[in-house]
Amino acid sequence: MFRPLLARPAFALANRSFSSISANQLQILESIKTFRKARHAIPRDATLGFVPTMGGLHDGHMALVEHARNSCDFIAASIFVNPTQFGPSEDYSKYPRTFEKDIALLTKLGVDFVFLPSADEMYMPHHCCYVVPSGFDDLVEGKCRQGHFRGVATIVTKLFNIVQPTHAFFGQKDAAQVVLIKRLVSDLNMSVKINVVPIVREADGLALSTRNQYLSPVERKAASVLYRGLVRAQHLFQKAKEEGKETIETKALYTVVYKELESEPLVTTIDYVSVGSKQTMREMSIVDTTEGAIVSVAVKIGNCRLIDNIVL
Amino acid sequence: MFRPLLARPAFALANRSFSSISANQLQILESIKTFRKARHAIPRDATLGFVPTMGGLHDGHMALVEHARNSCDFIAASIFVNPTQFGPSEDYSKYPRTFEKDIALLTKLGVDFVFLPSADEMYMPHHCCYVVPSGFDDLVEGKCRQGHFRGVATIVTKLFNIVQPTHAFFGQKDAAQVVLIKRLVSDLNMSVKINVVPIVREADGLALSTRNQYLSPVERKAASVLYRGLVRAQHLFQKAKEEGKETIETKALYTVVYKELESEPLVTTIDYVSVGSKQTMREMSIVDTTEGAIVSVAVKIGNCRLIDNIVL
Repeated sequence: MFRPLLARPAFALANRSFSSISANQLQILESIKTFRKARHAIPRDATLGFVPTMGGLHDGHMALVEHARNSCDFIAASIFVNPTQFGPSEDYSKYPRTFEKDIALLTKLGVDFVFLPSADEMYMPHHCCYVVPSGFDDLVEGKCRQGHFRGVATIVTKLFNIVQPTHAFFGQKDAAQVVLIKRLVSDLNMSVKINVVPIVREADGLALSTRNQYLSPVERKAASVLYRGLVRAQHLFQKAKEEGKETIETKALYTVVYKELESEPLVTTIDYVSVGSKQTMREMSIVDTTEGAIVSVAVKIGNCRLIDNIVL
Repeated sequence: MFRPLLARPAFALANRSFSSISANQLQILESIKTFRKARHAIPRDATLGFVPTMGGLHDGHMALVEHARNSCDFIAASIFVNPTQFGPSEDYSKYPRTFEKDIALLTKLGVDFVFLPSADEMYMPHHCCYVVPSGFDDLVEGKCRQGHFRGVATIVTKLFNIVQPTHAFFGQKDAAQVVLIKRLVSDLNMSVKINVVPIVREADGLALSTRNQYLSPVERKAASVLYRGLVRAQHLFQKAKEEGKETIETKALYTVVYKELESEPLVTTIDYVSVGSKQTMREMSIVDTTEGAIVSVAVKIGNCRLIDNIVL
């Protein structure tokens, strides 16, 4: 799946136009114009892997960078807390901003370019064109976050147009986002290859997330309930498969996950338990055991909203 | 504004990777994959001018190609009758399709690439991502054609992503479309330069349009009333300016245009007379004589809907 990493010093020497950029020296680019200039200095046939982030970096992001490093000649990351994907009652203003720590991590991992634009430059006065993924606001995650996927589709389109990556890396953690990005690239004929990287988990199964830092120690401990619920669904699915059943009713999968989530008193709200199609994330009533599905959950623990999923 | 035309045979000789394409030989590309391959063979630093069309080519389109030829090293045109920009009661199925004549014209003008995709390839099953220019459905032209600008923004985004032009050429004839395309490129950070080409008119002032062929001879004669109305507005504006007036009331401009249009009995419906901002096309109540405005009209003559505009 991945191409072997090119030896970069040789690459730099082989191509005179590239001699001005030395290998493994991170460039921080804070405007669209300066990023475009740096992008233009990369040889035409080199691959550029892109990891878009909102900062607050953790090992999940690092896994994305590692995957990019293993398959691309150059790596760009972006750090941009995108206002248009937050609802009015969401945590835009208090979303963790840890630029210095983030830059140190990206430097350590050998990222070549970090794009750090301002919200003012990304959304100029009179901005009116948005990329709207119709139907996504009707998915369980979309219903909870009206307009969220429009914001994601718009910023990813903008970033792809600026960064012009050959490959882009997204985490399976945001399952509906992964389905959205694949549709976006296909529907709008973007020439970038999308790579999906598995969820990185803590020892107790909690999926890494920037928002985990909102949890108090007891809440943090309780938060492993999401993964325990998902594993119960996986076991049930696996059992049905081993017993030679061709299908399993979604209801049975919902029930075991709900039961587990409800057993945890610190879970204040269960936004949803979903069993969705791998292609569209739309709810299914019966799952074909050879085709599988994605079981996803969203719950609130204290003031923190957590999501997770497992691919059956 | 325009760069001088590169001498193409020299260009072809200077760059070995380009020797496989001979100068002035039109390539017809009917799939996205084949177009991308042809695009990739163009040297990285060459300019590619793009003229998107729906076919039914006339001298207005030819003017776009001429402008492209004067400023770009290579020229691509597309012919695609885009279903998503037609309303359910509009003329999608009977829109003139004159491929052979169109190809002959484009060959004569030295176009290098013609992209002729199928509707099935451009809108695959499960297509759901659209580019939505919010506010455009509230403009006078948008109100008459709900969803039209969403269709235009989406197909132009898709075509730009496939064709990857350095320059693209649009006619001033579709004034709101021109404003939309400029916003689209700015809002989504596309790296293509938009060139706007003046309206080409018949001797009596009728703006060239593929839909003019729907007109009967008497209707064709009556159709010059649009331009006469617009010229009246221009004269009134010019007079106010010459008299040293700083502003002119839009109402006065509306009145002269309406009066002219109403004088023609074959005009069955006046969809609108609009005086809009050059930047946004939003209606104005007072026009600053130094800033100007765009006066646009849409009328029906027989079964044919005609639009026209003049820049003050």
